[in-house]
Amino acid sequence: MKNITDYSSLLESVIALVKEAAELARKTELSVIEKGAPENIVTESDLAVQRFLHERLGELLPRSAFFCEEEGLCENSGECVWIIDPIDGTANYSRGIHESAISVALVVGKEARLGVVYNIFTGDIFSAVRGGGAFLNGKKITVSKRSFREGLFCTAMCVYKKELAALCRDVIYDAYMECNDLRRFGGCALELCYIAAGRCELFFEMRVFPWDYAAAYLILSEAGGVLYGFDGEELDFSKTTMLVGANNRENYEKLAGIVKKHIKSLPYED
Amino acid sequence: MKNITDYSSLLESVIALVKEAAELARKTELSVIEKGAPENIVTESDLAVQRFLHERLGELLPRSAFFCEEEGLCENSGECVWIIDPIDGTANYSRGIHESAISVALVVGKEARLGVVYNIFTGDIFSAVRGGGAFLNGKKITVSKRSFREGLFCTAMCVYKKELAALCRDVIYDAYMECNDLRRFGGCALELCYIAAGRCELFFEMRVFPWDYAAAYLILSEAGGVLYGFDGEELDFSKTTMLVGANNRENYEKLAGIVKKHIKSLPYED
Repeated sequence: MKNITDYSSLLESVIALVKEAAELARKTELSVIEKGAPENIVTESDLAVQRFLHERLGELLPRSAFFCEEEGLCENSGECVWIIDPIDGTANYSRGIHESAISVALVVGKEARLGVVYNIFTGDIFSAVRGGGAFLNGKKITVSKRSFREGLFCTAMCVYKKELAALCRDVIYDAYMECNDLRRFGGCALELCYIAAGRCELFFEMRVFPWDYAAAYLILSEAGGVLYGFDGEELDFSKTTMLVGANNRENYEKLAGIVKKHIKSLPYED
Repeated sequence: MKNITDYSSLLESVIALVKEAAELARKTELSVIEKGAPENIVTESDLAVQRFLHERLGELLPRSAFFCEEEGLCENSGECVWIIDPIDGTANYSRGIHESAISVALVVGKEARLGVVYNIFTGDIFSAVRGGGAFLNGKKITVSKRSFREGLFCTAMCVYKKELAALCRDVIYDAYMECNDLRRFGGCALELCYIAAGRCELFFEMRVFPWDYAAAYLILSEAGGVLYGFDGEELDFSKTTMLVGANNRENYEKLAGIVKKHIKSLPYED
Protein backbone atom coordinates (compact mmCIF):
# COMPACT_ATOMS: atom_id res chain seq x y z
CA MET A 1 0.00 0.00 0.00
CA LYS A 2 1.42 3.39 -0.87
CA ASN A 3 1.73 5.98 1.86
CA ILE A 4 -1.14 8.37 2.35
CA THR A 5 0.28 11.83 1.86
CA ASP A 6 -2.82 13.97 1.70
CA TYR A 7 -5.38 13.29 4.43
CA SER A 8 -7.37 16.40 3.55
CA SER A 9 -8.22 15.17 0.09
CA LEU A 10 -8.84 11.66 1.49
CA LEU A 11 -11.28 13.30 3.93
CA GLU A 12 -13.22 14.84 1.04
CA SER A 13 -13.58 11.43 -0.58
CA VAL A 14 -14.67 9.84 2.70
CA ILE A 15 -17.27 12.55 3.33
CA ALA A 16 -18.67 12.05 -0.18
CA LEU A 17 -18.97 8.29 0.44
CA VAL A 18 -20.57 8.77 3.86
CA LYS A 19 -23.18 11.09 2.33
CA GLU A 20 -23.92 8.47 -0.31
CA ALA A 21 -24.20 5.83 2.44
CA ALA A 22 -26.66 7.99 4.38
CA GLU A 23 -28.78 8.33 1.25
CA LEU A 24 -28.79 4.54 1.04
CA ALA A 25 -29.89 4.31 4.69
CA ARG A 26 -32.76 6.70 4.06
CA LYS A 27 -33.91 4.62 1.07
CA THR A 28 -33.71 1.29 2.93
CA GLU A 29 -36.91 -0.06 4.42
CA LEU A 30 -36.82 0.15 8.19
CA SER A 31 -36.87 -3.33 9.69
CA VAL A 32 -35.55 -3.83 13.18
CA ILE A 33 -33.77 -7.03 14.16
CA GLU A 34 -33.08 -7.65 17.86
CA LYS A 35 -29.62 -8.93 18.75
CA GLY A 36 -30.67 -10.64 21.98
CA ALA A 37 -32.53 -7.86 23.80
CA PRO A 38 -34.59 -4.75 22.97
CA GLU A 39 -31.54 -2.59 23.76
CA ASN A 40 -29.39 -4.25 21.13
CA ILE A 41 -30.83 -3.94 17.66
CA VAL A 42 -29.70 -3.71 14.09
CA THR A 43 -31.69 -2.48 11.09
CA GLU A 44 -31.39 -3.22 7.38
CA SER A 45 -30.04 0.33 7.12
CA ASP A 46 -27.07 -0.48 9.39
CA LEU A 47 -26.26 -3.47 7.18
CA ALA A 48 -26.68 -1.58 3.91
CA VAL A 49 -24.47 1.30 5.10
CA GLN A 50 -21.75 -1.03 6.34
CA ARG A 51 -21.67 -3.10 3.13
CA PHE A 52 -21.48 0.04 1.02
CA LEU A 53 -18.68 1.63 3.08
CA HIS A 54 -16.75 -1.64 3.27
CA GLU A 55 -16.77 -1.92 -0.49
CA ARG A 56 -16.13 1.71 -1.40
CA LEU A 57 -13.57 2.58 1.31
CA GLY A 58 -11.78 -0.64 0.39
CA GLU A 59 -11.53 0.62 -3.19
CA LEU A 60 -10.33 4.01 -1.96
CA LEU A 61 -7.54 2.44 0.11
CA PRO A 62 -6.71 -1.05 -1.16
CA ARG A 63 -5.47 -3.54 1.45
CA SER A 64 -6.88 -1.50 4.37
CA ALA A 65 -8.53 -3.55 7.14
CA PHE A 66 -12.06 -3.11 8.53
CA PHE A 67 -13.17 -3.12 12.16
CA CYS A 68 -16.94 -2.58 12.17
CA GLU A 69 -19.96 -2.99 14.41
CA GLU A 70 -21.99 -5.41 12.28
CA GLU A 71 -21.48 -8.74 10.52
CA GLY A 72 -18.13 -9.80 11.91
CA LEU A 73 -15.91 -7.37 10.01
CA CYS A 74 -13.47 -7.33 12.88
CA GLU A 75 -10.00 -7.29 11.44
CA ASN A 76 -8.34 -4.74 13.69
CA SER A 77 -4.73 -5.23 12.66
CA GLY A 78 -2.57 -3.98 9.85
CA GLU A 79 -1.16 -0.60 8.99
CA CYS A 80 -4.47 1.03 7.97
CA VAL A 81 -7.75 0.17 9.70
CA TRP A 82 -11.15 1.67 9.00
CA ILE A 83 -13.22 1.66 12.19
CA ILE A 84 -16.88 2.02 11.31
CA ASP A 85 -20.20 2.27 13.07
CA PRO A 86 -22.71 2.24 10.20
CA ILE A 87 -25.33 3.76 12.52
CA ASP A 88 -24.42 4.95 16.01
CA GLY A 89 -27.72 5.42 17.83
CA THR A 90 -29.63 2.66 16.07
CA ALA A 91 -32.42 2.83 18.68
CA ASN A 92 -32.87 6.52 17.84
CA TYR A 93 -32.68 5.79 14.13
CA SER A 94 -35.36 3.10 14.33
CA ARG A 95 -37.66 5.53 16.15
CA GLY A 96 -37.13 8.60 13.99
CA ILE A 97 -35.21 10.46 16.74
CA HIS A 98 -32.84 12.81 14.95
CA GLU A 99 -29.69 11.76 16.81
CA SER A 100 -28.10 8.98 14.76
CA ALA A 101 -24.81 9.10 12.92
CA ILE A 102 -22.53 7.24 10.59
CA SER A 103 -19.08 7.12 12.22
CA VAL A 104 -15.93 6.43 10.16
CA ALA A 105 -12.36 6.62 11.47
CA LEU A 106 -9.10 5.76 9.80
CA VAL A 107 -6.42 4.49 12.15
CA VAL A 108 -2.90 4.36 10.69
CA GLY A 109 -0.14 2.76 12.75
CA LYS A 110 -2.40 2.72 15.85
CA GLU A 111 -3.09 6.46 15.54
CA ALA A 112 -6.43 7.98 14.57
CA ARG A 113 -5.71 10.10 11.51
CA LEU A 114 -9.12 10.88 10.05
CA GLY A 115 -12.63 10.94 11.50
CA VAL A 116 -16.11 11.67 10.16
CA VAL A 117 -19.37 11.66 12.16
CA TYR A 118 -22.39 12.36 9.97
CA ASN A 119 -25.89 12.92 11.40
CA ILE A 120 -28.14 10.94 9.06
CA PHE A 121 -31.22 13.07 9.78
CA THR A 122 -29.83 16.60 9.86
CA GLY A 123 -26.89 16.20 7.48
CA ASP A 124 -24.47 17.76 10.00
CA ILE A 125 -20.90 16.63 9.27
CA PHE A 126 -18.33 16.65 12.06
CA SER A 127 -14.84 15.92 10.74
CA ALA A 128 -11.14 16.06 11.52
CA VAL A 129 -7.77 14.99 10.22
CA ARG A 130 -4.97 14.69 12.74
CA GLY A 131 -3.23 18.01 13.30
CA GLY A 132 -5.70 19.94 11.15
CA GLY A 133 -8.39 21.00 13.63
CA ALA A 134 -12.01 19.92 13.89
CA PHE A 135 -14.91 21.05 11.71
CA LEU A 136 -18.70 21.11 11.62
CA ASN A 137 -20.00 21.49 8.08
CA GLY A 138 -16.63 22.90 7.06
CA LYS A 139 -16.50 25.50 9.85
CA LYS A 140 -13.81 25.18 12.51
CA ILE A 141 -15.10 24.18 15.95
CA THR A 142 -13.54 24.29 19.40
CA VAL A 143 -14.59 23.16 22.85
CA SER A 144 -16.28 25.66 25.17
CA LYS A 145 -14.49 27.44 28.01
CA ARG A 146 -17.25 26.57 30.50
CA SER A 147 -16.38 25.51 34.02
CA PHE A 148 -17.46 22.19 35.55
CA ARG A 149 -20.24 24.05 37.40
CA GLU A 150 -21.57 25.42 34.09
CA GLY A 151 -21.04 22.15 32.22
CA LEU A 152 -23.61 19.94 30.52
CA PHE A 153 -22.83 16.30 31.24
CA CYS A 154 -23.61 13.64 28.58
CA THR A 155 -23.83 10.20 30.07
CA ALA A 156 -25.60 6.82 30.08
CA MET A 157 -26.15 3.84 32.35
CA CYS A 158 -24.49 0.98 30.47
CA VAL A 159 -27.47 -0.21 28.48
CA TYR A 160 -26.00 -3.55 27.33
CA LYS A 161 -24.90 -4.56 30.85
CA LYS A 162 -27.49 -3.20 33.21
CA GLU A 163 -25.90 -5.02 36.13
CA LEU A 164 -23.40 -2.12 36.01
CA ALA A 165 -26.10 0.58 36.07
CA ALA A 166 -25.90 1.15 39.83
CA LEU A 167 -22.24 2.14 39.53
CA CYS A 168 -23.10 4.52 36.70
CA ARG A 169 -25.96 5.96 38.75
CA ASP A 170 -23.60 6.84 41.60
CA VAL A 171 -21.05 8.50 39.29
CA ILE A 172 -23.79 10.39 37.49
CA TYR A 173 -25.42 11.66 40.66
CA ASP A 174 -22.18 12.95 42.16
CA ALA A 175 -21.14 14.67 38.94
CA TYR A 176 -24.64 16.07 38.43
CA MET A 177 -24.59 17.76 41.84
CA GLU A 178 -21.49 19.70 40.78
CA CYS A 179 -22.26 20.53 37.16
CA ASN A 180 -25.14 22.30 35.41
CA ASP A 181 -27.33 19.53 33.98
CA LEU A 182 -27.45 16.12 32.30
CA ARG A 183 -28.09 15.19 28.71
CA ARG A 184 -28.59 11.83 27.05
CA PHE A 185 -29.23 12.17 23.34
CA GLY A 186 -28.70 8.47 22.80
CA GLY A 187 -25.50 8.10 20.77
CA CYS A 188 -21.87 8.31 21.94
CA ALA A 189 -20.39 9.59 18.65
CA LEU A 190 -22.63 12.64 18.37
CA GLU A 191 -22.43 13.45 22.08
CA LEU A 192 -18.62 13.57 21.90
CA CYS A 193 -18.92 15.80 18.83
CA TYR A 194 -21.23 18.12 20.80
CA ILE A 195 -18.43 18.57 23.33
CA ALA A 196 -16.08 19.27 20.43
CA ALA A 197 -18.50 21.92 19.14
CA GLY A 198 -18.82 23.64 22.54
CA ARG A 199 -22.44 22.60 23.12
CA CYS A 200 -21.72 20.24 26.03
CA GLU A 201 -18.73 19.80 28.35
CA LEU A 202 -18.56 16.44 30.14
CA PHE A 203 -18.80 12.78 29.14
CA PHE A 204 -18.86 9.48 31.00
CA GLU A 205 -19.88 6.11 29.69
CA MET A 206 -19.05 2.80 31.31
CA ARG A 207 -18.55 0.50 28.35
CA VAL A 208 -18.15 1.70 24.80
CA PHE A 209 -16.89 0.07 21.59
CA PRO A 210 -14.15 1.43 19.29
CA TRP A 211 -16.61 2.08 16.46
CA ASP A 212 -18.63 4.32 18.83
CA TYR A 213 -15.73 6.60 19.71
CA ALA A 214 -12.79 6.29 17.25
CA ALA A 215 -13.87 9.07 14.87
CA ALA A 216 -15.34 11.27 17.60
CA TYR A 217 -12.18 10.89 19.70
CA LEU A 218 -10.14 12.53 16.95
CA ILE A 219 -12.75 15.25 16.38
CA LEU A 220 -12.87 16.05 20.11
CA SER A 221 -9.07 16.02 20.45
CA GLU A 222 -8.64 18.30 17.45
CA ALA A 223 -11.24 20.67 18.95
CA GLY A 224 -9.18 20.96 22.13
CA GLY A 225 -10.97 18.43 24.34
CA VAL A 226 -9.69 15.37 26.19
CA LEU A 227 -10.90 11.77 26.25
CA TYR A 228 -9.43 8.78 28.06
CA GLY A 229 -10.30 5.28 29.15
CA PHE A 230 -10.44 4.04 32.73
CA ASP A 231 -7.97 5.73 35.08
CA GLY A 232 -6.45 7.95 32.41
CA GLU A 233 -5.62 5.13 30.02
CA GLU A 234 -4.90 6.20 26.42
CA LEU A 235 -7.45 4.87 23.95
CA ASP A 236 -6.08 2.24 21.60
CA PHE A 237 -9.10 1.61 19.34
CA SER A 238 -8.96 -2.13 19.73
CA LYS A 239 -11.17 -2.84 22.73
CA THR A 240 -14.27 -2.10 24.70
CA THR A 241 -13.48 0.72 27.10
CA MET A 242 -14.79 3.17 29.63
CA LEU A 243 -14.80 6.76 28.37
CA VAL A 244 -14.25 9.85 30.49
CA GLY A 245 -14.02 13.10 28.57
CA ALA A 246 -14.29 16.84 28.93
CA ASN A 247 -13.81 20.19 27.23
CA ASN A 248 -10.51 20.71 29.07
CA ARG A 249 -8.03 18.94 31.34
CA GLU A 250 -9.22 20.59 34.55
CA ASN A 251 -12.81 19.43 34.04
CA TYR A 252 -11.57 16.02 32.95
CA GLU A 253 -9.55 15.62 36.14
CA LYS A 254 -12.54 16.51 38.28
CA LEU A 255 -14.83 14.07 36.48
CA ALA A 256 -12.18 11.33 36.51
CA GLY A 257 -11.86 11.84 40.27
CA ILE A 258 -15.59 11.29 40.74
CA VAL A 259 -15.45 8.16 38.57
CA LYS A 260 -12.48 6.80 40.54
CA LYS A 261 -14.28 7.38 43.84
CA HIS A 262 -16.95 4.88 42.79
CA ILE A 263 -15.11 2.56 40.41
CA LYS A 264 -11.83 1.15 41.69
CA SER A 265 -11.25 -1.27 38.84
CA LEU A 266 -12.90 -1.87 35.48
CA PRO A 267 -15.91 -4.07 36.30
CA TYR A 268 -15.98 -6.00 33.00
CA GLU A 269 -13.61 -7.82 30.70
CA ASP A 270 -15.13 -7.21 27.30
CA MET B 1 -65.37 38.12 24.18
CA LYS B 2 -67.21 36.18 21.52
CA ASN B 3 -67.15 32.40 21.70
CA ILE B 4 -64.47 30.62 19.76
CA THR B 5 -66.28 28.35 17.36
CA ASP B 6 -63.48 27.23 15.09
CA TYR B 7 -60.35 26.07 16.86
CA SER B 8 -58.90 24.63 13.67
CA SER B 9 -58.72 27.98 11.95
CA LEU B 10 -57.51 29.59 15.20
CA LEU B 11 -54.74 26.94 15.21
CA GLU B 12 -53.64 28.00 11.73
CA SER B 13 -53.33 31.60 12.89
CA VAL B 14 -51.40 30.57 16.01
CA ILE B 15 -48.98 28.43 13.98
CA ALA B 16 -48.34 31.34 11.62
CA LEU B 17 -47.57 33.63 14.58
CA VAL B 18 -45.32 31.05 16.24
CA LYS B 19 -43.33 30.69 13.01
CA GLU B 20 -42.95 34.46 12.85
CA ALA B 21 -41.84 34.49 16.50
CA ALA B 22 -39.21 31.80 15.79
CA GLU B 23 -37.88 33.92 12.93
CA LEU B 24 -37.56 36.78 15.42
CA ALA B 25 -35.68 34.51 17.85
CA ARG B 26 -33.26 33.50 15.12
CA LYS B 27 -32.60 37.16 14.26
CA THR B 28 -32.08 38.24 17.88
CA GLU B 29 -28.52 38.43 19.12
CA LEU B 30 -27.81 35.67 21.60
CA SER B 31 -27.11 37.14 25.03
CA VAL B 32 -27.58 34.96 28.06
CA ILE B 33 -28.81 36.42 31.36
CA GLU B 34 -28.60 34.23 34.48
CA LYS B 35 -31.65 34.24 36.73
CA GLY B 36 -29.77 33.36 39.92
CA ALA B 37 -27.85 30.22 38.84
CA PRO B 38 -26.30 28.76 35.67
CA GLU B 39 -29.29 26.41 35.39
CA ASN B 40 -31.79 29.22 35.20
CA ILE B 41 -31.18 31.51 32.28
CA VAL B 42 -33.08 33.75 29.91
CA THR B 43 -31.92 35.11 26.56
CA GLU B 44 -32.94 38.18 24.59
CA SER B 45 -34.63 35.70 22.25
CA ASP B 46 -36.94 34.45 25.02
CA LEU B 47 -37.95 38.03 25.75
CA ALA B 48 -38.42 38.98 22.09
CA VAL B 49 -40.57 35.89 21.41
CA GLN B 50 -42.73 36.46 24.48
CA ARG B 51 -43.32 40.15 23.72
CA PHE B 52 -44.26 39.35 20.13
CA LEU B 53 -46.67 36.55 21.07
CA HIS B 54 -48.21 38.57 23.89
CA GLU B 55 -48.99 41.39 21.49
CA ARG B 56 -50.14 39.34 18.50
CA LEU B 57 -52.10 36.63 20.33
CA GLY B 58 -53.75 39.41 22.31
CA GLU B 59 -54.91 40.96 19.03
CA LEU B 60 -56.09 37.56 17.79
CA LEU B 61 -58.21 37.01 20.92
CA PRO B 62 -58.95 40.32 22.64
CA ARG B 63 -59.38 40.18 26.42
CA SER B 64 -57.57 36.85 26.73
CA ALA B 65 -55.18 36.53 29.69
CA PHE B 66 -51.48 35.57 29.56
CA PHE B 67 -49.58 33.16 31.80
CA CYS B 68 -45.96 33.10 30.61
CA GLU B 69 -42.51 32.13 31.78
CA GLU B 70 -40.80 35.50 31.54
CA GLU B 71 -41.37 39.08 32.75
CA GLY B 72 -44.23 38.55 35.17
CA LEU B 73 -46.99 37.93 32.67
CA CYS B 74 -48.77 35.71 35.15
CA GLU B 75 -52.46 36.35 34.91
CA ASN B 76 -53.80 32.83 35.05
CA SER B 77 -57.50 33.57 35.48
CA GLY B 78 -60.33 34.44 33.16
CA GLU B 79 -62.19 32.47 30.54
CA CYS B 80 -59.35 32.32 27.98
CA VAL B 81 -55.72 32.03 29.05
CA TRP B 82 -52.69 31.74 26.77
CA ILE B 83 -49.98 29.72 28.50
CA ILE B 84 -46.64 30.40 26.84
CA ASP B 85 -43.07 29.32 27.13
CA PRO B 86 -41.26 31.55 24.64
CA ILE B 87 -38.35 29.08 24.61
CA ASP B 88 -38.58 25.72 26.39
CA GLY B 89 -35.03 24.43 26.60
CA THR B 90 -33.29 27.80 26.88
CA ALA B 91 -30.02 26.12 27.92
CA ASN B 92 -30.10 24.10 24.70
CA TYR B 93 -31.04 27.17 22.69
CA SER B 94 -28.16 29.20 24.10
CA ARG B 95 -25.73 26.40 23.16
CA GLY B 96 -27.02 25.66 19.67
CA ILE B 97 -28.43 22.25 20.69
CA HIS B 98 -31.34 21.59 18.36
CA GLU B 99 -33.87 20.79 21.07
CA SER B 100 -35.64 24.03 21.94
CA ALA B 101 -39.24 24.93 21.30
CA ILE B 102 -41.81 27.67 21.49
CA SER B 103 -44.79 26.31 23.44
CA VAL B 104 -48.22 27.95 23.20
CA ALA B 105 -51.42 26.59 24.76
CA LEU B 106 -54.89 28.07 24.94
CA VAL B 107 -56.86 27.12 28.03
CA VAL B 108 -60.58 27.91 27.89
CA GLY B 109 -62.67 27.39 31.02
CA LYS B 110 -59.80 25.47 32.67
CA GLU B 111 -59.54 23.07 29.72
CA ALA B 112 -56.63 22.94 27.26
CA ARG B 113 -58.20 23.48 23.84
CA LEU B 114 -55.28 24.24 21.55
CA GLY B 115 -51.56 23.50 21.73
CA VAL B 116 -48.54 24.21 19.54
CA VAL B 117 -44.94 23.13 20.21
CA TYR B 118 -42.54 24.43 17.56
CA ASN B 119 -38.89 23.35 17.37
CA ILE B 120 -37.03 26.59 16.65
CA PHE B 121 -34.06 24.84 14.99
CA THR B 122 -35.72 22.13 12.90
CA GLY B 123 -39.06 23.80 12.17
CA ASP B 124 -41.00 20.72 13.37
CA ILE B 125 -44.51 21.72 14.43
CA PHE B 126 -46.41 19.54 16.91
CA SER B 127 -50.03 20.66 17.28
CA ALA B 128 -53.46 19.68 18.54
CA VAL B 129 -56.92 21.05 19.11
CA ARG B 130 -59.04 19.28 21.68
CA GLY B 131 -60.92 16.35 20.15
CA GLY B 132 -59.18 16.68 16.80
CA GLY B 133 -56.12 14.45 17.17
CA ALA B 134 -52.44 15.37 17.30
CA PHE B 135 -50.21 16.32 14.38
CA LEU B 136 -46.56 16.69 13.44
CA ASN B 137 -46.10 18.99 10.45
CA GLY B 138 -49.73 18.38 9.51
CA LYS B 139 -49.48 14.56 9.66
CA LYS B 140 -51.48 12.71 12.31
CA ILE B 141 -49.36 11.17 15.09
CA THR B 142 -50.14 8.56 17.72
CA VAL B 143 -48.27 7.07 20.66
CA SER B 144 -46.34 3.83 20.14
CA LYS B 145 -47.62 0.43 21.27
CA ARG B 146 -44.31 -0.43 22.95
CA SER B 147 -44.29 -2.19 26.32
CA PHE B 148 -42.60 -0.76 29.41
CA ARG B 149 -39.68 -3.13 28.80
CA GLU B 150 -39.23 -1.70 25.29
CA GLY B 151 -39.86 1.88 26.36
CA LEU B 152 -37.52 4.89 26.15
CA PHE B 153 -37.80 6.93 29.34
CA CYS B 154 -37.37 10.73 29.19
CA THR B 155 -36.53 12.19 32.55
CA ALA B 156 -34.51 14.75 34.50
CA MET B 157 -33.21 15.36 38.01
CA CYS B 158 -34.97 18.58 39.06
CA VAL B 159 -32.41 21.07 37.85
CA TYR B 160 -33.79 24.13 39.71
CA LYS B 161 -33.99 22.31 43.06
CA LYS B 162 -31.07 19.93 43.16
CA GLU B 163 -31.82 19.09 46.79
CA LEU B 164 -34.53 16.87 45.25
CA ALA B 165 -32.15 15.13 42.82
CA ALA B 166 -31.56 12.10 45.06
CA LEU B 167 -35.28 11.27 44.99
CA CYS B 168 -35.27 11.62 41.20
CA ARG B 169 -32.16 9.42 40.98
CA ASP B 170 -33.92 6.60 42.85
CA VAL B 171 -37.05 6.77 40.68
CA ILE B 172 -34.95 6.92 37.51
CA TYR B 173 -32.78 3.95 38.47
CA ASP B 174 -35.72 1.71 39.32
CA ALA B 175 -37.60 2.61 36.14
CA TYR B 176 -34.43 2.26 34.06
CA MET B 177 -33.88 -1.30 35.25
CA GLU B 178 -37.30 -2.24 33.86
CA CYS B 179 -37.43 -0.26 30.62
CA ASN B 180 -35.18 -0.06 27.57
CA ASP B 181 -33.12 3.11 28.01
CA LEU B 182 -33.06 6.72 29.18
CA ARG B 183 -33.14 9.93 27.22
CA ARG B 184 -32.70 13.54 28.28
CA PHE B 185 -32.94 15.93 25.38
CA GLY B 186 -33.26 18.90 27.68
CA GLY B 187 -36.78 20.26 27.23
CA CYS B 188 -40.05 18.99 28.69
CA ALA B 189 -42.32 20.21 25.88
CA LEU B 190 -40.47 18.42 23.07
CA GLU B 191 -39.94 15.26 25.12
CA LEU B 192 -43.69 14.96 25.75
CA CYS B 193 -44.27 15.51 22.02
CA TYR B 194 -41.81 12.69 21.26
CA ILE B 195 -44.00 10.36 23.31
CA ALA B 196 -47.00 11.67 21.34
CA ALA B 197 -45.16 10.87 18.09
CA GLY B 198 -44.28 7.31 19.17
CA ARG B 199 -40.53 7.98 19.49
CA CYS B 200 -40.37 7.59 23.28
CA GLU B 201 -42.72 6.04 25.84
CA LEU B 202 -42.20 7.19 29.44
CA PHE B 203 -41.84 10.53 31.23
CA PHE B 204 -41.08 11.60 34.78
CA GLU B 205 -40.07 15.01 35.99
CA MET B 206 -40.22 16.18 39.59
CA ARG B 207 -41.15 19.84 39.25
CA VAL B 208 -42.43 21.42 36.06
CA PHE B 209 -44.19 24.68 35.26
CA PRO B 210 -47.49 25.07 33.35
CA TRP B 211 -45.76 26.77 30.40
CA ASP B 212 -43.51 23.71 30.04
CA TYR B 213 -46.34 21.23 29.69
CA ALA B 214 -49.71 22.87 28.87
CA ALA B 215 -49.44 22.61 25.08
CA ALA B 216 -47.59 19.28 25.09
CA TYR B 217 -50.17 17.81 27.50
CA LEU B 218 -52.90 18.37 24.92
CA ILE B 219 -50.75 17.05 22.08
CA LEU B 220 -49.88 13.91 24.06
CA SER B 221 -53.50 13.36 25.16
CA GLU B 222 -54.77 13.75 21.60
CA ALA B 223 -52.15 11.24 20.43
CA GLY B 224 -53.49 8.67 22.89
CA GLY B 225 -51.01 9.11 25.75
CA VAL B 226 -51.58 9.89 29.41
CA LEU B 227 -50.07 12.55 31.68
CA TYR B 228 -50.82 13.29 35.33
CA GLY B 229 -49.43 15.11 38.31
CA PHE B 230 -48.39 13.55 41.61
CA ASP B 231 -50.41 10.49 42.59
CA GLY B 232 -52.67 10.63 39.55
CA GLU B 233 -53.76 14.23 40.05
CA GLU B 234 -55.36 15.87 37.00
CA LEU B 235 -53.28 18.76 35.64
CA ASP B 236 -54.89 22.16 36.15
CA PHE B 237 -52.39 24.43 34.36
CA SER B 238 -52.11 26.84 37.26
CA LYS B 239 -49.25 25.47 39.33
CA THR B 240 -45.87 23.86 39.49
CA THR B 241 -46.36 20.11 39.36
CA MET B 242 -44.76 16.70 39.11
CA LEU B 243 -45.36 15.03 35.75
CA VAL B 244 -45.72 11.29 35.19
CA GLY B 245 -46.66 10.26 31.67
CA ALA B 246 -46.65 7.35 29.26
CA ASN B 247 -47.79 6.09 25.90
CA ASN B 248 -50.64 4.16 27.53
CA ARG B 249 -52.39 3.62 30.85
CA GLU B 250 -50.68 0.33 31.67
CA ASN B 251 -47.20 1.83 31.33
CA TYR B 252 -48.31 4.93 33.20
CA GLU B 253 -49.56 2.82 36.14
CA LYS B 254 -46.28 0.97 36.34
CA LEU B 255 -44.21 4.16 36.26
CA ALA B 256 -46.53 5.89 38.77
CA GLY B 257 -46.07 2.88 41.07
CA ILE B 258 -42.28 3.28 40.95
CA VAL B 259 -42.62 7.02 41.66
CA LYS B 260 -44.95 6.37 44.62
CA LYS B 261 -42.53 3.84 46.08
CA HIS B 262 -39.93 6.58 46.49
CA ILE B 263 -42.03 9.72 46.87
CA LYS B 264 -44.83 9.56 49.44
CA SER B 265 -45.80 13.21 49.29
CA LEU B 266 -44.86 16.10 47.02
CA PRO B 267 -41.57 17.40 48.46
CA TYR B 268 -42.06 21.06 47.54
CA GLU B 269 -44.73 23.74 47.73
CA ASP B 270 -44.07 25.78 44.63
